[in-house]
Amino acid sequence: MIAVDAMGGDHAPAPEVAGAAAAVREGDLRVVLCGDRDVLRAELARAGSGESERLTIRHATEVVGMHDHPGRAFRQKRDSSLRVAFDLVRAGEAHAVVSAGNSGAVLSHALFLLKRLPDVERPGIVTVFPRPLSETERAASGSAEPVPMGTLVLCDMGANVEVKPTMLAQFGVLGAHYDRIVHGHTRPRVGLLSNGSEHTKGTELTRAAHEILRQAAENPDAQFEYVGYVEGSELFRGDIDVVATDGFTGNVVLKVSEGVSQTVLRMVKAALTSTVRAKLGAALVKPALMALRQSIDYSEAGGAVLAGVDGLVVICHGRSDATAMKNAIKAADEDARAGLVDQLARAMKRHHGLWVEPPAAEKAAAESGQGGQPASDRTSS
Amino acid sequence: MIAVDAMGGDHAPAPEVAGAAAAVREGDLRVVLCGDRDVLRAELARAGSGESERLTIRHATEVVGMHDHPGRAFRQKRDSSLRVAFDLVRAGEAHAVVSAGNSGAVLSHALFLLKRLPDVERPGIVTVFPRPLSETERAASGSAEPVPMGTLVLCDMGANVEVKPTMLAQFGVLGAHYDRIVHGHTRPRVGLLSNGSEHTKGTELTRAAHEILRQAAENPDAQFEYVGYVEGSELFRGDIDVVATDGFTGNVVLKVSEGVSQTVLRMVKAALTSTVRAKLGAALVKPALMALRQSIDYSEAGGAVLAGVDGLVVICHGRSDATAMKNAIKAADEDARAGLVDQLARAMKRHHGLWVEPPAAEKAAAESGQGGQPASDRTSS
Repeated sequence: MIAVDAMGGDHAPAPEVAGAAAAVREGDLRVVLCGDRDVLRAELARAGSGESERLTIRHATEVVGMHDHPGRAFRQKRDSSLRVAFDLVRAGEAHAVVSAGNSGAVLSHALFLLKRLPDVERPGIVTVFPRPLSETERAASGSAEPVPMGTLVLCDMGANVEVKPTMLAQFGVLGAHYDRIVHGHTRPRVGLLSNGSEHTKGTELTRAAHEILRQAAENPDAQFEYVGYVEGSELFRGDIDVVATDGFTGNVVLKVSEGVSQTVLRMVKAALTSTVRAKLGAALVKPALMALRQSIDYSEAGGAVLAGVDGLVVICHGRSDATAMKNAIKAADEDARAGLVDQLARAMKRHHGLWVEPPAAEKAAAESGQGGQPASDRTSS
Repeated sequence: MIAVDAMGGDHAPAPEVAGAAAAVREGDLRVVLCGDRDVLRAELARAGSGESERLTIRHATEVVGMHDHPGRAFRQKRDSSLRVAFDLVRAGEAHAVVSAGNSGAVLSHALFLLKRLPDVERPGIVTVFPRPLSETERAASGSAEPVPMGTLVLCDMGANVEVKPTMLAQFGVLGAHYDRIVHGHTRPRVGLLSNGSEHTKGTELTRAAHEILRQAAENPDAQFEYVGYVEGSELFRGDIDVVATDGFTGNVVLKVSEGVSQTVLRMVKAALTSTVRAKLGAALVKPALMALRQSIDYSEAGGAVLAGVDGLVVICHGRSDATAMKNAIKAADEDARAGLVDQLARAMKRHHGLWVEPPAAEKAAAESGQGGQPASDRTSS
């Protein structure tokens, strides 16, 4: 059963309710909508649906707003739709939380109520980008599609904007195992996002994370390959499956990618109506371009898994529509059936002892004034 | 006169020499090629050109390699093509340096030989992105082009990967004045790149820089507007003219933008040959799409100005071809004639006293263990 925070998103509860109703209609899964019972009943009726054995409502009197402080929301709103959804997972009644609400609040609820997996310092948000297959991958896949698509896994997409090297390295390892478990890649290629491919590039943070990832990949049981630094231009070429980065940069990468792909497609559309000749051709190429547009539409992808907590948590974009919510709920159900969280926990155990900066010791050092990052500057050469 | 480091780029000296010859042929400007005289003479002959009053050679016996350490290259290679080009500017014989070589070495030569402008803590690399005009801008411009293009100025693109808040704020101010002087915008709209638009987002670094930029824009003589945080998805929408970011993130933005736009265009091309119907239309839309491709081709843009040093320095991509070199040389000549550096120096004076963290005091604080950045983590919302 999937617990949906039905009141969290920008347009809640309409997309949450319609998405849940569609997911239940299309697949063999159960959803519990968390939120105000009367509001959700009315919304279900509007969506041409109703409560059933597979689609239930769990009443919650409060809502965490997009501008609520994550920690305060957790402490003060004890009966929010988000809290009720998490409590269902914690009690073992539901197998996953899906929320399009305040992502900071989702994170704080996950940390306080589900806790981190052993050895994981910070959970990271795993985002899956569509990307065209490389020539090599295309030949191996034997796909007859005009533009066969693959995936690029990025972690962290925004849960942690300021991180330590061990956390950044863990995002790569979590991403690799996610890719292996969810996409079936036997030995994912993992890169570390930097401003150049030479090992002298990057920041103190990336240089330290690079060393940890190098060591992690040397483990014979690692089940991933570490390819070193990758530049922004290499992300969508198909030579890597997983990219590790901090949450600030990861968020920028996601949003710049969305912005640029939309801008280029808009410019293509404008170019197609710019001349009489182009207009004649535009009618003929339109179906092919519509299919392309859909294949790179991020809203199709649904949610992003918060990897590294002891429970399945799926974070959706605040502006998610019913299709995005439906896809996120279906993906959460598949991930739950695949035992994603248990598999991630087992995989992280293989790297036990690698995370050389124990959080407690480092915290003590930082408090005594020894552990701060010097504000040194480096050129990008 | 423009001093070109003719030996620095990945494919040097062919693109440098051909680009210089073309620039001299097309425009009323003078170029001095710095590098091995015999090699450059042979290359000029190959390019169907030769030495003339407007195209001269200054002999240099050494070359700074792409993997040379910037500081060591400066200290040890006293007769490099890069050093000779800088010395010409320092002596007042040339008005600008243009180099496609080791950008770290270009930066260290600029800092040691030309020095920073007063009040500038760190120079930043200014990159200009092509972007479609917004609806409002389009109406105001009255352009009849199918896809009328504008500019987005980004600073810093990679000179400083680890920065302090005052440096980051200065990148916004330098970018704003560059945009005003070079693109003629009377009151550029400046944004600070972050992972969300609310002021609670971002890192300690961006939150502190936000405050400084807010204060800078309150100056009645500022000549720019500060719009606050902008997300990656907003960069190309046309609501902002200038975006400030650190060199690590700036480099990622540049390269992700290049990668995504090339990927989408490649996918469009594949889609256009995916069906018989699309193939028929493809022939008709091809000219319009070729024009579009050129309008978003970064190689057309030429070089990037290193803003904040007391002299005009233009950094080109290592893989620059002859067209990119030609465009960079012509742009450098225009910027020199416009008195870009003097204008930037005058503009920065208006903000004198704003940069509240004197480098010396902060360094002392950091050394005593008080000024380090705590390694705290924040969630993204």
